[in-house]
Amino acid sequence: MSDKCIFCKVADHELPSRVIYENDDFMVLLDQFPSSLGHTLVIPKLHFENIFDIPEDTAANLQRLVVKAARALSKSLGTSSINILQNNGSLAGQTVFHYHVHLIPRYDGDSVKFGWSAAKPAAEEFDACAEKVTASFNASN
Amino acid sequence: MSDKCIFCKVADHELPSRVIYENDDFMVLLDQFPSSLGHTLVIPKLHFENIFDIPEDTAANLQRLVVKAARALSKSLGTSSINILQNNGSLAGQTVFHYHVHLIPRYDGDSVKFGWSAAKPAAEEFDACAEKVTASFNASN
Repeated sequence: MSDKCIFCKVADHELPSRVIYENDDFMVLLDQFPSSLGHTLVIPKLHFENIFDIPEDTAANLQRLVVKAARALSKSLGTSSINILQNNGSLAGQTVFHYHVHLIPRYDGDSVKFGWSAAKPAAEEFDACAEKVTASFNASN
Repeated sequence: MSDKCIFCKVADHELPSRVIYENDDFMVLLDQFPSSLGHTLVIPKLHFENIFDIPEDTAANLQRLVVKAARALSKSLGTSSINILQNNGSLAGQTVFHYHVHLIPRYDGDSVKFGWSAAKPAAEEFDACAEKVTASFNASN
């Protein structure tokens, strides 16, 4: 028995996966249940739950592989449209609680739907939000 | 008359915006048409269209601000669910062709919908895809 999460098992080669690239710290692999042809994940090998606990350096270095993988997907699969999505928390649709970045190549007529109703907020509400977030940003950084 | 894109104008303070943080290279600001309270964008001040032309270093350094901003949003707005989304190309829903990362705080019952039909592909098709993407990844890197 192991209480390792599924991506820790993938990173340790305890589960089969289609690895595109790996180094000591990261793995680029195809998603086992792709939303579209070439749906790719980039994960750190160490376990971090999400963006709230991953070290900044790790997230920044992982992003280099996201850039490289996006370019490789575009060249090899012939699409210049790709969504990069990283979900944090249950309400955001995170289901595996090990930081992972999705690269979702897009094709005409695919099944992927991203959307929201955008609305311009009242100026006072907007200013209050900006003030609150700025104070928190400055306090943490 | 100017042919600057809208985010170049924002970066140059030629358009009003709610700036959370900025330095020489990047700006963190509230989206003018938020999907949810606290919808935030992180942009480079220099113009890059998307992930295909942004330098790796720039994308990596920008990601540090995404991490910081996500934590500030979570603390100040009381949600631990945030989607990080970066769209490349028209089919992926990119509408402003200046690299930008969305931080979308999530709340119970909000209007944001992200989804796709996932299906396990045939092993041969999956292997062929892995082979093609790996070859392209190795050739570019």
